Amino acid sequence: MKITRMHGAGGKVMQDLIKEIILSNLERTSVNGGIGLECLDDASTIPIGDKEIVFTVDGHTVKPIFFPGGDIGRLSVCGTVNDLAVMGAKPLALSLSLILPEGFDIEKLDKIMKSINEACKEADVAVITGDTKVSNVDDIIISSSGIGVVDKGKAIRDSSIKEGDAIIVSGNIGDHGLAILLSREGFEFDADIKSDVAPLNKMIEMVLNEGIEIHAMKDPTRGGLADALNEMAEKSGLGIDIYEERIPISEEVQSIADILGIDPLTVANEGKVVMAVKREDAERCLEILRKHPLGKNAEIIGYATKEHKGVVMETIVGKRVVDTPIGDPIPRVC
Amino acid sequence: MKITRMHGAGGKVMQDLIKEIILSNLERTSVNGGIGLECLDDASTIPIGDKEIVFTVDGHTVKPIFFPGGDIGRLSVCGTVNDLAVMGAKPLALSLSLILPEGFDIEKLDKIMKSINEACKEADVAVITGDTKVSNVDDIIISSSGIGVVDKGKAIRDSSIKEGDAIIVSGNIGDHGLAILLSREGFEFDADIKSDVAPLNKMIEMVLNEGIEIHAMKDPTRGGLADALNEMAEKSGLGIDIYEERIPISEEVQSIADILGIDPLTVANEGKVVMAVKREDAERCLEILRKHPLGKNAEIIGYATKEHKGVVMETIVGKRVVDTPIGDPIPRVC
Ligand SMILES: Nc1ncnc2c1ncn2[C@@H]1O[C@H](COP(=O)(O)OP(=O)(O)OP(=O)(O)O)[C@@H](O)[C@H]1O
Ligand SMILES: Nc1ncnc2c1ncn2[C@@H]1O[C@H](COP(=O)(O)OP(=O)(O)OP(=O)(O)O)[C@@H](O)[C@H]1O
Ligand SMILES: [Mg+2]
Ligand SMILES: [Mg+2]
Ligand SMILES: [Mg+2]
Ligand SMILES: [Mg+2]
Ligand SMILES: [Mg+2]
Ligand SMILES: [Mg+2]
Repeated sequence: MKITRMHGAGGKVMQDLIKEIILSNLERTSVNGGIGLECLDDASTIPIGDKEIVFTVDGHTVKPIFFPGGDIGRLSVCGTVNDLAVMGAKPLALSLSLILPEGFDIEKLDKIMKSINEACKEADVAVITGDTKVSNVDDIIISSSGIGVVDKGKAIRDSSIKEGDAIIVSGNIGDHGLAILLSREGFEFDADIKSDVAPLNKMIEMVLNEGIEIHAMKDPTRGGLADALNEMAEKSGLGIDIYEERIPISEEVQSIADILGIDPLTVANEGKVVMAVKREDAERCLEILRKHPLGKNAEIIGYATKEHKGVVMETIVGKRVVDTPIGDPIPRVC
Repeated sequence: MKITRMHGAGGKVMQDLIKEIILSNLERTSVNGGIGLECLDDASTIPIGDKEIVFTVDGHTVKPIFFPGGDIGRLSVCGTVNDLAVMGAKPLALSLSLILPEGFDIEKLDKIMKSINEACKEADVAVITGDTKVSNVDDIIISSSGIGVVDKGKAIRDSSIKEGDAIIVSGNIGDHGLAILLSREGFEFDADIKSDVAPLNKMIEMVLNEGIEIHAMKDPTRGGLADALNEMAEKSGLGIDIYEERIPISEEVQSIADILGIDPLTVANEGKVVMAVKREDAERCLEILRKHPLGKNAEIIGYATKEHKGVVMETIVGKRVVDTPIGDPIPRVC
């Protein structure tokens, strides 16, 4: 068996590889009774004193490395910060492992480092360790891991949706993936689609500080909203009903996705969060989110249910099942 | 200016890149008053309660990925564990960011994961988070970051050698780099040189548990012993005198290095530690090290001095300065 693009595209093919080849070979996947790798959540935790250290990593091979709305530097910081933030953690520090191709412009590296610095200031995190290698790669690769901290027992899982919870998305979906696709393929659309890449920790902190009961949280990156919702539903042993008309998508993204035959629900985002919130808190949560620039298009898109498993979407022509995608339709998207 | 192989080879060229393009662009490089990136030590720390979380990362692009004595999986675990261990920390958890080429054999990945598992058991650490991407790379790349823990204020720096300290190396140098070179280039030497790749944390723990006063510690990886000693001396504001006859090198490594015209002092190791130890503790430290299989060839190779800066080696034909190498003579060594 050989590795294909699909093995790195989020979705079902990648999840199977992780379970069958990675997880199954590892005997030690958690520390001190914390949330371990076997949970396959956005991050894992290590209890220390009255805190839990939260730990995550993402590698970035996005092509092109500079794209509308961001670049690989900003993406590296935000991707890692967001996986910590959706655990309910305060992100503190990042590591930066650079793999550079021979002949790479040092001016480009300088530009990427400046972008990393700006994103770190936005998210209030520090780069405290790193590594630099030169290898046979077609472009720079950045792997960034991150450390955050949360009070013991307060980490928010992606597996703990409760029946009746409101499902909230913090804004328009599909922008990141389509921005990458359009800038890579040079399609001649008269569209101004930008990546949404942004650090979500401040916005999520606002919601938590207001005492909103968030039962589960996830960032819908590779595999898009479809993947995130299915994973949350499956792990929680519940179903999710969503309403197509309530899903925030810009007209531009919708129409270009239609032309290209891509389902925007399966397209990667890099500045969005999906929350399962106690139903009574949902409207107040929405208000708080909408006060933040990154949450102005937030919507309640549906509810968790015991009536069925999986994700079902009500459209104008009836209900349809929203499956876990095989992979993200756009390769090298992050 | 363009990136060259030297920018990823340890040594002077890489150090300049890190200072001029990476460090100079970052405004936040430490957290809560811990050891920050600006110290350019093996790892950084985040004080939390009465502990410090120790954090490090290394990317691995070694070629070939399977080599005498180990493979890229074992290397990834040991490299990260060792950077934590030389800070005096107990390594706890690793992250695993995989970059896979399209067409990569899944059987190879399986073999690498089994090797990672074995090394994790040896070092008593867990893999708790990871990420998987497929990209245009010539072979698998693994970036592994690690978290360890040390009592507050007890982290051991690479910059705190004291005058008169004994400089101890835990065993034969040069094996890793030469093993890589020979297996990559297919030289027809009648030699059996194996990488020394191994986790050092248990051995270092033994030394610390016996109350030996280690003032400074470093793993002499890329750039070899020459690089590690120079960095320790320079950061400590002292000089180091070493004695060529005391430096442990196997006959095979010495003779092949001579034939190839490579200075073994500049060749990477992946299972060795250099310690600066209080002079009175040196013999006892040596005894403890030699009881451990990874330390059986440990030697006191010299002493720290105020008389000069830099590293000076006494040889049978007189003294010579041992400079910081420009880079490791062997590219893609780890
Ligand atoms: N190579 C790997 N080794 C160990 N664990 C892995 C590896 N790849 C993925 N995982 C684990 O699988 C789960 C899913 O990984 P995934 O990368 O999809 O999560 P994510 O980072 O939240 O999403 P994205 O990478 O799209 O931002 C996580 O728990 C992650 O730690
Ligand atoms: N890309 C980078 N971004 C931030 N810091 C970096 C980067 N590359 C290296 N550093 C920092 O520079 C210092 C030296 O790095 P280096 O990789 O040589 O250390 P090491 O891991 O101990 O050695 P080796 O990689 O040979 O095992 C470390 O403090 C490291 O954190
Ligand atoms: Mg995530
Ligand atoms: Mg992620
Ligand atoms: Mg390194
Ligand atoms: Mg080191
Ligand atoms: Mg290292
Ligand atoms: Mg990931």
